[in-house]
Amino acid sequence: MTNRLEQQIKFIREVDKLKNVFRQSYLLDTSRKENDAEHTWHLAMMAVVLQEHCPDDKLDINRTLKMLLVHDLVEIDAGDTFAYDEAGQEGKFEREKLAAERIFGLLPADQRDEFMSLWLEFEERETTEAVYAAAIDRLQPLLHNYYTEGKAWKEHGVSGGKVLARIQFLSERIPVLFTFAEGLVQDAVGKGYLLP
Amino acid sequence: MTNRLEQQIKFIREVDKLKNVFRQSYLLDTSRKENDAEHTWHLAMMAVVLQEHCPDDKLDINRTLKMLLVHDLVEIDAGDTFAYDEAGQEGKFEREKLAAERIFGLLPADQRDEFMSLWLEFEERETTEAVYAAAIDRLQPLLHNYYTEGKAWKEHGVSGGKVLARIQFLSERIPVLFTFAEGLVQDAVGKGYLLP
Repeated sequence: MTNRLEQQIKFIREVDKLKNVFRQSYLLDTSRKENDAEHTWHLAMMAVVLQEHCPDDKLDINRTLKMLLVHDLVEIDAGDTFAYDEAGQEGKFEREKLAAERIFGLLPADQRDEFMSLWLEFEERETTEAVYAAAIDRLQPLLHNYYTEGKAWKEHGVSGGKVLARIQFLSERIPVLFTFAEGLVQDAVGKGYLLP
Repeated sequence: MTNRLEQQIKFIREVDKLKNVFRQSYLLDTSRKENDAEHTWHLAMMAVVLQEHCPDDKLDINRTLKMLLVHDLVEIDAGDTFAYDEAGQEGKFEREKLAAERIFGLLPADQRDEFMSLWLEFEERETTEAVYAAAIDRLQPLLHNYYTEGKAWKEHGVSGGKVLARIQFLSERIPVLFTFAEGLVQDAVGKGYLLP
Protein backbone atom coordinates (compact mmCIF):
# COMPACT_ATOMS: atom_id res chain seq x y z
CA MET A 1 0.00 0.00 0.00
CA THR A 2 1.45 3.36 -0.97
CA ASN A 3 1.87 6.04 1.63
CA ARG A 4 -0.81 8.19 -0.03
CA LEU A 5 -3.38 5.40 -0.01
CA GLU A 6 -2.54 4.68 3.63
CA GLN A 7 -3.19 8.31 4.59
CA GLN A 8 -6.40 8.36 2.58
CA ILE A 9 -7.70 5.21 4.26
CA LYS A 10 -6.88 6.66 7.67
CA PHE A 11 -8.97 9.74 6.80
CA ILE A 12 -11.82 7.59 5.47
CA ARG A 13 -11.87 5.63 8.74
CA GLU A 14 -11.72 8.78 10.86
CA VAL A 15 -14.64 10.51 9.16
CA ASP A 16 -16.93 7.57 9.94
CA LYS A 17 -17.34 9.37 13.29
CA LEU A 18 -19.56 11.97 11.57
CA LYS A 19 -22.34 9.36 11.77
CA ASN A 20 -22.36 9.81 15.54
CA VAL A 21 -22.54 13.62 15.60
CA PHE A 22 -26.22 14.33 16.25
CA ARG A 23 -27.99 17.56 15.35
CA GLN A 24 -31.04 19.27 16.83
CA SER A 25 -33.31 18.64 13.85
CA TYR A 26 -35.49 15.55 13.62
CA LEU A 27 -36.07 13.13 10.78
CA LEU A 28 -39.34 13.92 9.03
CA ASP A 29 -41.01 10.98 10.78
CA THR A 30 -39.84 12.53 14.12
CA SER A 31 -38.51 9.13 15.27
CA ARG A 32 -35.10 10.57 16.17
CA LYS A 33 -32.68 13.44 15.62
CA GLU A 34 -30.56 13.23 12.50
CA ASN A 35 -26.80 12.93 12.37
CA ASP A 36 -24.34 14.99 10.38
CA ALA A 37 -23.47 12.26 7.87
CA GLU A 38 -27.03 11.61 6.74
CA HIS A 39 -27.78 15.36 6.87
CA THR A 40 -24.82 15.94 4.55
CA TRP A 41 -26.07 13.32 2.10
CA HIS A 42 -29.45 15.04 2.09
CA LEU A 43 -27.81 18.41 1.36
CA ALA A 44 -25.81 17.00 -1.55
CA MET A 45 -28.98 15.43 -2.97
CA MET A 46 -30.85 18.74 -2.58
CA ALA A 47 -28.02 20.70 -4.20
CA VAL A 48 -28.32 18.51 -7.31
CA VAL A 49 -32.13 18.70 -7.42
CA LEU A 50 -32.46 22.46 -6.82
CA GLN A 51 -29.53 23.67 -8.93
CA GLU A 52 -31.75 25.39 -11.53
CA HIS A 53 -32.92 27.88 -8.89
CA CYS A 54 -29.43 29.31 -8.47
CA PRO A 55 -29.47 32.25 -10.88
CA ASP A 56 -25.72 32.19 -11.50
CA ASP A 57 -25.37 29.73 -14.37
CA LYS A 58 -21.63 29.57 -13.84
CA LEU A 59 -22.24 27.62 -10.62
CA ASP A 60 -19.69 24.79 -10.37
CA ILE A 61 -21.89 22.04 -8.97
CA ASN A 62 -18.91 19.74 -8.50
CA ARG A 63 -17.17 22.19 -6.17
CA THR A 64 -20.47 22.78 -4.38
CA LEU A 65 -20.86 19.07 -3.77
CA LYS A 66 -17.29 18.70 -2.50
CA MET A 67 -17.80 21.69 -0.23
CA LEU A 68 -20.97 20.17 1.21
CA LEU A 69 -19.35 16.75 1.65
CA VAL A 70 -16.62 18.21 3.89
CA HIS A 71 -18.36 21.20 5.50
CA ASP A 72 -19.45 19.48 8.73
CA LEU A 73 -16.41 17.24 9.28
CA VAL A 74 -15.03 19.72 11.82
CA GLU A 75 -17.96 18.79 14.06
CA ILE A 76 -16.31 15.41 14.73
CA ASP A 77 -14.08 17.32 17.17
CA ALA A 78 -15.99 20.56 17.73
CA GLY A 79 -19.51 19.09 18.03
CA ASP A 80 -22.68 20.45 16.50
CA THR A 81 -23.50 23.98 17.66
CA PHE A 82 -27.23 24.68 17.44
CA ALA A 83 -27.80 27.61 15.10
CA TYR A 84 -29.73 29.57 17.74
CA ASP A 85 -27.37 28.87 20.65
CA GLU A 86 -25.79 32.30 21.05
CA ALA A 87 -23.35 31.27 23.78
CA GLY A 88 -22.23 28.33 21.62
CA GLN A 89 -21.23 30.66 18.77
CA GLU A 90 -18.47 32.08 21.00
CA GLY A 91 -15.11 30.72 19.88
CA LYS A 92 -16.84 28.40 17.39
CA PHE A 93 -14.62 29.28 14.44
CA GLU A 94 -11.41 28.72 16.44
CA ARG A 95 -12.62 25.33 17.72
CA GLU A 96 -13.60 24.32 14.22
CA LYS A 97 -10.35 25.52 12.68
CA LEU A 98 -8.34 23.32 15.04
CA ALA A 99 -10.60 20.43 14.10
CA ALA A 100 -10.12 21.11 10.40
CA GLU A 101 -6.36 21.08 10.82
CA ARG A 102 -6.39 17.77 12.65
CA ILE A 103 -8.91 15.97 10.44
CA PHE A 104 -7.87 17.27 7.01
CA GLY A 105 -4.28 16.86 8.21
CA LEU A 106 -4.70 13.08 8.02
CA LEU A 107 -4.69 13.37 4.22
CA PRO A 108 -1.74 13.87 1.84
CA ALA A 109 -0.77 17.57 1.82
CA ASP A 110 -2.40 18.48 -1.51
CA GLN A 111 -5.74 17.02 -0.43
CA ARG A 112 -5.44 18.54 3.05
CA ASP A 113 -4.99 21.96 1.44
CA GLU A 114 -7.87 21.45 -0.98
CA PHE A 115 -10.30 20.42 1.77
CA MET A 116 -9.13 23.20 4.07
CA SER A 117 -9.77 25.75 1.37
CA LEU A 118 -13.19 24.26 0.54
CA TRP A 119 -14.12 24.47 4.21
CA LEU A 120 -12.93 28.08 4.50
CA GLU A 121 -14.75 28.99 1.29
CA PHE A 122 -17.96 27.55 2.76
CA GLU A 123 -17.46 29.48 6.01
CA GLU A 124 -16.77 32.78 4.20
CA ARG A 125 -19.94 32.47 2.13
CA GLU A 126 -18.86 34.76 -0.70
CA THR A 127 -18.49 32.68 -3.86
CA THR A 128 -21.56 31.51 -5.77
CA GLU A 129 -20.81 27.93 -4.73
CA ALA A 130 -20.52 28.83 -1.04
CA VAL A 131 -23.71 30.91 -1.06
CA TYR A 132 -25.62 28.12 -2.79
CA ALA A 133 -24.20 25.47 -0.42
CA ALA A 134 -25.10 27.63 2.60
CA ALA A 135 -28.60 28.18 1.20
CA ILE A 136 -29.16 24.44 1.03
CA ASP A 137 -27.69 24.02 4.52
CA ARG A 138 -30.25 26.54 5.86
CA LEU A 139 -33.18 25.24 3.83
CA GLN A 140 -32.88 21.59 4.86
CA PRO A 141 -33.38 22.05 8.64
CA LEU A 142 -36.09 24.61 7.86
CA LEU A 143 -37.96 21.96 5.86
CA HIS A 144 -37.43 19.43 8.64
CA ASN A 145 -38.74 21.81 11.25
CA TYR A 146 -41.70 22.92 9.17
CA TYR A 147 -42.79 19.39 8.29
CA THR A 148 -42.43 18.18 11.89
CA GLU A 149 -44.69 21.02 13.09
CA GLY A 150 -41.71 22.92 14.46
CA LYS A 151 -40.56 20.11 16.78
CA ALA A 152 -36.98 21.33 17.32
CA TRP A 153 -37.96 25.02 17.05
CA LYS A 154 -40.50 24.55 19.87
CA GLU A 155 -37.99 22.68 22.05
CA HIS A 156 -35.65 25.67 21.81
CA GLY A 157 -38.24 28.49 21.75
CA VAL A 158 -37.08 29.84 18.37
CA SER A 159 -38.82 32.86 16.83
CA GLY A 160 -39.71 33.55 13.20
CA GLY A 161 -37.50 36.63 13.25
CA LYS A 162 -34.42 34.59 14.15
CA VAL A 163 -35.04 32.11 11.35
CA LEU A 164 -35.61 34.91 8.85
CA ALA A 165 -32.38 36.59 9.92
CA ARG A 166 -30.47 33.41 9.10
CA ILE A 167 -31.83 33.20 5.55
CA GLN A 168 -31.72 36.93 4.78
CA PHE A 169 -28.42 36.60 2.82
CA LEU A 170 -30.34 34.61 0.22
CA SER A 171 -32.80 37.35 -0.66
CA GLU A 172 -30.62 38.86 -3.38
CA ARG A 173 -28.43 35.91 -4.29
CA ILE A 174 -31.00 33.11 -4.64
CA PRO A 175 -34.41 34.80 -4.67
CA VAL A 176 -36.52 31.76 -5.61
CA LEU A 177 -35.29 29.78 -2.63
CA PHE A 178 -35.51 32.84 -0.38
CA THR A 179 -39.14 33.46 -1.27
CA PHE A 180 -39.97 29.81 -0.75
CA ALA A 181 -38.21 29.70 2.64
CA GLU A 182 -39.71 33.02 3.74
CA GLY A 183 -43.17 31.69 2.95
CA LEU A 184 -42.56 28.61 5.09
CA VAL A 185 -41.39 30.77 7.99
CA GLN A 186 -44.44 33.04 7.80
CA ASP A 187 -46.73 30.05 7.63
CA ALA A 188 -44.89 28.43 10.55
CA VAL A 189 -45.41 31.52 12.69
CA GLY A 190 -49.11 31.52 11.76
CA LYS A 191 -49.42 27.87 12.76
CA GLY A 192 -47.55 28.34 16.04
CA TYR A 193 -44.50 26.26 15.05
CA LEU A 194 -42.35 29.36 15.62
CA LEU A 195 -42.72 32.13 18.19
CA PRO A 196 -43.84 35.43 16.58
CA MET B 1 -44.29 28.11 -5.52
CA THR B 2 -43.83 26.85 -9.07
CA ASN B 3 -44.95 23.41 -9.99
CA ARG B 4 -41.34 22.29 -10.54
CA LEU B 5 -40.24 23.46 -7.10
CA GLU B 6 -43.26 21.76 -5.56
CA GLN B 7 -42.34 18.45 -7.19
CA GLN B 8 -38.71 18.84 -6.14
CA ILE B 9 -39.65 19.51 -2.51
CA LYS B 10 -41.91 16.47 -2.53
CA PHE B 11 -38.96 14.34 -3.71
CA ILE B 12 -36.63 15.90 -1.11
CA ARG B 13 -39.13 15.04 1.63
CA GLU B 14 -39.62 11.50 0.35
CA VAL B 15 -35.93 10.62 0.21
CA ASP B 16 -35.54 11.47 3.92
CA LYS B 17 -36.74 7.87 4.39
CA LEU B 18 -33.32 6.62 3.24
CA LYS B 19 -32.11 7.48 6.76
CA ASN B 20 -34.25 4.64 8.09
CA VAL B 21 -33.07 1.94 5.68
CA PHE B 22 -30.53 -0.03 7.69
CA ARG B 23 -27.74 -2.13 6.21
CA GLN B 24 -25.88 -5.16 7.53
CA SER B 25 -22.56 -3.38 8.07
CA TYR B 26 -21.68 -1.72 11.35
CA LEU B 27 -20.22 1.67 12.09
CA LEU B 28 -16.50 1.37 12.80
CA ASP B 29 -17.15 1.74 16.54
CA THR B 30 -19.60 -1.24 16.23
CA SER B 31 -22.25 0.71 18.19
CA ARG B 32 -24.94 0.09 15.56
CA LYS B 33 -25.58 -0.83 11.93
CA GLU B 34 -25.32 2.00 9.45
CA ASN B 35 -28.13 3.37 7.32
CA ASP B 36 -28.19 3.98 3.59
CA ALA B 37 -28.08 7.79 3.83
CA GLU B 38 -24.92 7.98 5.93
CA HIS B 39 -23.40 5.11 3.91
CA THR B 40 -24.04 7.11 0.74
CA TRP B 41 -22.37 10.21 2.20
CA HIS B 42 -19.35 8.07 3.09
CA LEU B 43 -19.18 6.71 -0.48
CA ALA B 44 -19.30 10.20 -1.99
CA MET B 45 -16.54 11.33 0.36
CA MET B 46 -14.45 8.28 -0.57
CA ALA B 47 -15.01 8.82 -4.29
CA VAL B 48 -13.54 12.31 -3.98
CA VAL B 49 -10.58 11.18 -1.85
CA LEU B 50 -9.63 8.11 -3.91
CA GLN B 51 -10.20 9.52 -7.39
CA GLU B 52 -6.48 9.46 -8.34
CA HIS B 53 -6.50 5.64 -8.16
CA CYS B 54 -8.95 5.38 -11.05
CA PRO B 55 -6.63 4.97 -14.02
CA ASP B 56 -9.06 6.49 -16.53
CA ASP B 57 -8.28 10.19 -16.32
CA LYS B 58 -11.44 11.00 -18.24
CA LEU B 59 -13.48 10.01 -15.18
CA ASP B 60 -16.33 12.51 -14.72
CA ILE B 61 -16.33 12.82 -10.93
CA ASN B 62 -19.47 14.93 -10.98
CA ARG B 63 -21.48 12.18 -12.69
CA THR B 64 -19.93 9.65 -10.32
CA LEU B 65 -21.08 11.68 -7.33
CA LYS B 66 -24.59 12.10 -8.69
CA MET B 67 -24.74 8.37 -9.42
CA LEU B 68 -23.68 7.56 -5.86
CA LEU B 69 -26.13 10.06 -4.36
CA VAL B 70 -29.10 8.33 -6.02
CA HIS B 71 -27.92 4.70 -6.28
CA ASP B 72 -29.55 3.41 -3.08
CA LEU B 73 -32.79 5.42 -3.18
CA VAL B 74 -34.63 2.42 -4.59
CA GLU B 75 -34.08 0.71 -1.23
CA ILE B 76 -36.67 3.05 0.34
CA ASP B 77 -39.25 0.74 -1.24
CA ALA B 78 -37.26 -2.40 -2.04
CA GLY B 79 -35.24 -2.59 1.21
CA ASP B 80 -31.57 -3.39 1.56
CA THR B 81 -30.67 -6.82 0.19
CA PHE B 82 -27.55 -8.20 1.88
CA ALA B 83 -24.88 -8.82 -0.75
CA TYR B 84 -24.49 -12.49 0.26
CA ASP B 85 -28.20 -13.28 0.54
CA GLU B 86 -28.65 -15.45 -2.55
CA ALA B 87 -32.39 -15.90 -2.17
CA GLY B 88 -32.76 -12.12 -1.79
CA GLN B 89 -31.13 -11.52 -5.18
CA GLU B 90 -34.13 -13.20 -6.85
CA GLY B 91 -36.34 -10.54 -8.44
CA LYS B 92 -34.21 -7.78 -6.91
CA PHE B 93 -33.83 -5.77 -10.11
CA GLU B 94 -37.57 -5.84 -10.82
CA ARG B 95 -38.41 -4.70 -7.26
CA GLU B 96 -35.86 -1.94 -7.50
CA LYS B 97 -37.01 -0.81 -10.92
CA LEU B 98 -40.56 -0.31 -9.65
CA ALA B 99 -39.12 1.66 -6.74
CA ALA B 100 -37.04 3.82 -9.09
CA GLU B 101 -40.12 4.60 -11.16
CA ARG B 102 -42.14 5.63 -8.14
CA ILE B 103 -39.43 7.64 -6.36
CA PHE B 104 -37.77 9.36 -9.33
CA GLY B 105 -41.28 9.84 -10.71
CA LEU B 106 -41.93 12.44 -8.00
CA LEU B 107 -39.56 14.80 -9.85
CA PRO B 108 -40.17 16.88 -12.98
CA ALA B 109 -39.84 14.64 -16.06
CA ASP B 110 -36.35 15.78 -17.12
CA GLN B 111 -34.93 15.12 -13.66
CA ARG B 112 -36.82 11.84 -13.35
CA ASP B 113 -35.23 10.69 -16.62
CA GLU B 114 -31.75 11.85 -15.58
CA PHE B 115 -31.91 10.02 -12.23
CA MET B 116 -33.38 6.91 -13.81
CA SER B 117 -30.54 6.79 -16.30
CA LEU B 118 -27.92 7.40 -13.58
CA TRP B 119 -29.38 4.53 -11.58
CA LEU B 120 -29.42 2.20 -14.60
CA GLU B 121 -25.87 3.21 -15.49
CA PHE B 122 -24.77 2.29 -11.96
CA GLU B 123 -26.56 -1.06 -12.16
CA GLU B 124 -25.06 -1.92 -15.56
CA ARG B 125 -21.53 -1.22 -14.35
CA GLU B 126 -19.98 -0.58 -17.75
CA THR B 127 -18.93 3.07 -17.94
CA THR B 128 -15.81 4.28 -16.12
CA GLU B 129 -18.00 6.24 -13.71
CA ALA B 130 -20.21 3.25 -12.91
CA VAL B 131 -17.22 0.93 -12.38
CA TYR B 132 -15.56 3.45 -10.10
CA ALA B 133 -18.80 4.09 -8.16
CA ALA B 134 -19.34 0.34 -7.76
CA ALA B 135 -15.72 -0.10 -6.63
CA ILE B 136 -16.26 2.42 -3.85
CA ASP B 137 -19.59 0.78 -2.97
CA ARG B 138 -17.77 -2.56 -2.52
CA LEU B 139 -14.73 -1.16 -0.76
CA GLN B 140 -16.61 0.74 1.96
CA PRO B 141 -18.38 -2.25 3.58
CA LEU B 142 -15.18 -4.24 3.15
CA LEU B 143 -13.33 -1.63 5.21
CA HIS B 144 -16.12 -1.60 7.78
CA ASN B 145 -16.04 -5.35 8.10
CA TYR B 146 -12.28 -5.56 8.24
CA TYR B 147 -11.92 -2.87 10.90
CA THR B 148 -14.72 -4.34 13.05
CA GLU B 149 -12.95 -7.73 13.01
CA GLY B 150 -15.47 -9.11 10.52
CA LYS B 151 -18.52 -8.41 12.71
CA ALA B 152 -21.16 -8.58 9.96
CA TRP B 153 -19.22 -11.23 7.98
CA LYS B 154 -19.17 -13.52 11.01
CA GLU B 155 -22.88 -12.98 11.70
CA HIS B 156 -23.63 -14.21 8.19
CA GLY B 157 -20.86 -16.83 7.82
CA VAL B 158 -19.31 -15.15 4.76
CA SER B 159 -16.21 -16.69 3.13
CA GLY B 160 -13.17 -14.97 1.63
CA GLY B 161 -13.97 -16.49 -1.74
CA LYS B 162 -17.39 -14.84 -1.83
CA VAL B 163 -15.95 -11.44 -0.99
CA LEU B 164 -13.22 -11.83 -3.62
CA ALA B 165 -15.79 -12.80 -6.23
CA ARG B 166 -17.63 -9.53 -5.61
CA ILE B 167 -14.54 -7.39 -6.18
CA GLN B 168 -13.09 -9.38 -9.09
CA PHE B 169 -14.46 -6.91 -11.69
CA LEU B 170 -12.00 -4.35 -10.31
CA SER B 171 -8.88 -6.34 -11.03
CA GLU B 172 -8.43 -4.92 -14.53
CA ARG B 173 -10.37 -1.67 -14.28
CA ILE B 174 -9.02 -0.24 -11.00
CA PRO B 175 -5.98 -2.36 -10.09
CA VAL B 176 -4.70 -0.24 -7.18
CA LEU B 177 -7.98 -0.53 -5.31
CA PHE B 178 -8.31 -4.20 -6.26
CA THR B 179 -4.88 -5.05 -4.87
CA PHE B 180 -5.61 -3.14 -1.68
CA ALA B 181 -9.01 -4.82 -1.22
CA GLU B 182 -7.62 -8.27 -2.07
CA GLY B 183 -4.92 -7.80 0.58
CA LEU B 184 -7.55 -6.96 3.20
CA VAL B 185 -9.56 -10.06 2.29
CA GLN B 186 -6.53 -12.35 2.52
CA ASP B 187 -5.57 -10.84 5.83
CA ALA B 188 -9.17 -11.16 7.07
CA VAL B 189 -9.19 -14.87 6.23
CA GLY B 190 -5.87 -15.29 8.07
CA LYS B 191 -7.29 -13.54 11.13
CA GLY B 192 -10.54 -15.55 11.09
CA TYR B 193 -12.78 -12.58 10.22
CA LEU B 194 -13.85 -14.47 7.09
CA LEU B 195 -14.34 -18.20 6.54
CA PRO B 196 -11.61 -19.70 4.32
